[in-house]
Amino acid sequence: MIANTPKTPYYAVIFTSFRTDDDAAGYSEMAEKMVEMGSKMKGFLGIESARNEVGITVSYWETLEDIRNWKQVSEHQSAQLEGRNKWYSAYKTRICKVERDYGFEKL
Amino acid sequence: MIANTPKTPYYAVIFTSFRTDDDAAGYSEMAEKMVEMGSKMKGFLGIESARNEVGITVSYWETLEDIRNWKQVSEHQSAQLEGRNKWYSAYKTRICKVERDYGFEKL
Repeated sequence: MIANTPKTPYYAVIFTSFRTDDDAAGYSEMAEKMVEMGSKMKGFLGIESARNEVGITVSYWETLEDIRNWKQVSEHQSAQLEGRNKWYSAYKTRICKVERDYGFEKL
Repeated sequence: MIANTPKTPYYAVIFTSFRTDDDAAGYSEMAEKMVEMGSKMKGFLGIESARNEVGITVSYWETLEDIRNWKQVSEHQSAQLEGRNKWYSAYKTRICKVERDYGFEKL
């Protein structure tokens, strides 16, 4: 799905990552749980995700405060810690203001 | 690769897309050519890309003007048109200012 975001401005978190070879099942379970929890947070607008060697997950939010709030949720903090300990060999998180957007859909 | 971007602020273009089933070879060739051309443009900082069902490509740029310049390059304009005619069933482009970033790398 392409996230059905509102009119700009809104915010995006681009999370780019490389996985270790460890614990694929635990990772999948946690990833699913975090999407489920995150998408219930105030200000959540949508999420897009793809992985080949590199994984890219972009989540969209109404405000920077919504992003901060989600980052602080204790289950999410535990997941981040476990991510660094087990599941990711490297990642980068980028907090962005979406200033303009446009799209196309074939009819 | 995680794009080796400089200190914030810089800009990101998030391109989220769905492919048609048409012309996979032509699409791959053009995608490769556009990455090659785009990465030679002034202000280009890096690119990250992954595709499962949905494809996400994020390119990073120094300024909004650099993004506009690349959008206007005639070969890129032709590729965009061909994209709408043949390769994509839907896409969304989001122009973002990256305000903050942080990362992790396992030693």
